[in-house]
Amino acid sequence: MDTRPIGVFDSGVGGLTVVKQIMKVMPHENIVYFGDTARVPYGTKSKEAVTKYSKQNVRFLLSKGVKAIIVACNTASSNSIDALRDTFDVPIFGVVVPGVEEALLSTKNKKIGVIGTPGTVRSGAYEKMICEKDGEMQVFTKACPLFVPLAEEGWTDNEVSRQAAKRYLDELVEKGIDSLVLGCTHYPLLKRCIGTTVGDAIKLVDPAKATALRVMHFLGERNQLNQEDAEGKKQFYLSDSTDTFQFVCEKALKFPYQPQIIDIERY
Amino acid sequence: MDTRPIGVFDSGVGGLTVVKQIMKVMPHENIVYFGDTARVPYGTKSKEAVTKYSKQNVRFLLSKGVKAIIVACNTASSNSIDALRDTFDVPIFGVVVPGVEEALLSTKNKKIGVIGTPGTVRSGAYEKMICEKDGEMQVFTKACPLFVPLAEEGWTDNEVSRQAAKRYLDELVEKGIDSLVLGCTHYPLLKRCIGTTVGDAIKLVDPAKATALRVMHFLGERNQLNQEDAEGKKQFYLSDSTDTFQFVCEKALKFPYQPQIIDIERY
Repeated sequence: MDTRPIGVFDSGVGGLTVVKQIMKVMPHENIVYFGDTARVPYGTKSKEAVTKYSKQNVRFLLSKGVKAIIVACNTASSNSIDALRDTFDVPIFGVVVPGVEEALLSTKNKKIGVIGTPGTVRSGAYEKMICEKDGEMQVFTKACPLFVPLAEEGWTDNEVSRQAAKRYLDELVEKGIDSLVLGCTHYPLLKRCIGTTVGDAIKLVDPAKATALRVMHFLGERNQLNQEDAEGKKQFYLSDSTDTFQFVCEKALKFPYQPQIIDIERY
Repeated sequence: MDTRPIGVFDSGVGGLTVVKQIMKVMPHENIVYFGDTARVPYGTKSKEAVTKYSKQNVRFLLSKGVKAIIVACNTASSNSIDALRDTFDVPIFGVVVPGVEEALLSTKNKKIGVIGTPGTVRSGAYEKMICEKDGEMQVFTKACPLFVPLAEEGWTDNEVSRQAAKRYLDELVEKGIDSLVLGCTHYPLLKRCIGTTVGDAIKLVDPAKATALRVMHFLGERNQLNQEDAEGKKQFYLSDSTDTFQFVCEKALKFPYQPQIIDIERY
């Protein structure tokens, strides 16, 4: 048994959808969350910038004595996970591999859509990994840069988000996909709007749950799960104070939080 | 005569609309522009974060030997200009004062609308300054956080931006304003969409031109204008590479650029 916390970081608040899934499958785990709200978003920034920021985030989480780290941000998972694993000894999990595995289980016609930030789409991580696993797969990607600010504005299902979804997603629907990977941790917040736009025939794949399960299996195999009776403690750290965090935290996690602000540039 | 460059900084690319106005009224001035594309946007961040970043930006521009600095970002102008003036000796100009003066000249019915980022609106800088100049003025403010990502997506006048504009601006129109300050340097890029939404009876006030004129008068009075015959040289620096910069630069300035990437956290 290992009672050390699991570290989770995201560019901002989107990673809370991953925390929610960890809490579901591993309710006894202590969690340290870091949201880089001072430098959000990552999705429109270069690979170099995202990797630099991600390294600082890992160093911060290591200072909290974590036993494993989840990169809850798709942009960082797609662009920086190799650099992180090369640099640090701690087990590091991204969201792309679990998302890919879910998508492969979901599709029947071998046509998969992937939506994400410009940085995630530019990296090519999803299509590369999907096609490595099954060369017959067809993958259609689309960057949806406005979905993050829409989620942060709380416009998760109104006429603005629906118009934006239509503009982004119609071309994927026309390709005949039967599964659509929500390749950004913010996007589950827009699930209803996205689902209405693409229709019931297309299954939405959220990598968050598969990511939590993957980490659970990893820790279980090594006898590192926290088996204390109490519910795990949660610590939230941000690099800047923000109203959005409170909004999403209450919406996604449905419990009060007490984030502490830290200076991430020092790590 | 003083041939040193004018320094301009913005959170990202929006300040290019200010550069455009400087080029119009002072074509011989050399300009050093810094866009903090690694940490954009400022508008959703705290006063503390914006002030810290702004100080780093000023230090960088001072390292380029500038004779004056324009804070082309409304969020930084509203939240951080006093701190900057307290810290540095160089003349520093914001965009709020010129915007306020333009609005006072524009309004006939003394009802002024101001739109900006959450950070600008939260600061209260515009209404405070307008009401100090004329206590009879009524000021109505509205944060429009989606306008910046819409401008950066290039969706300056489509059904998504028009729906968003309607949602943000209808309440200001109902207040009976006759002038609307575009209190964010990105917003002039959405001018047509905003103008269509509020109608011809409401005059749009863009602080960029008034800011350029104010700096011209200041330098002229001190005999510090550059009176060389040649067109001024432009140097562009960014803290991260971004496609958006190229897009907006070509759209707003209509000339090729060659931005250099610097590590702003070192300043």
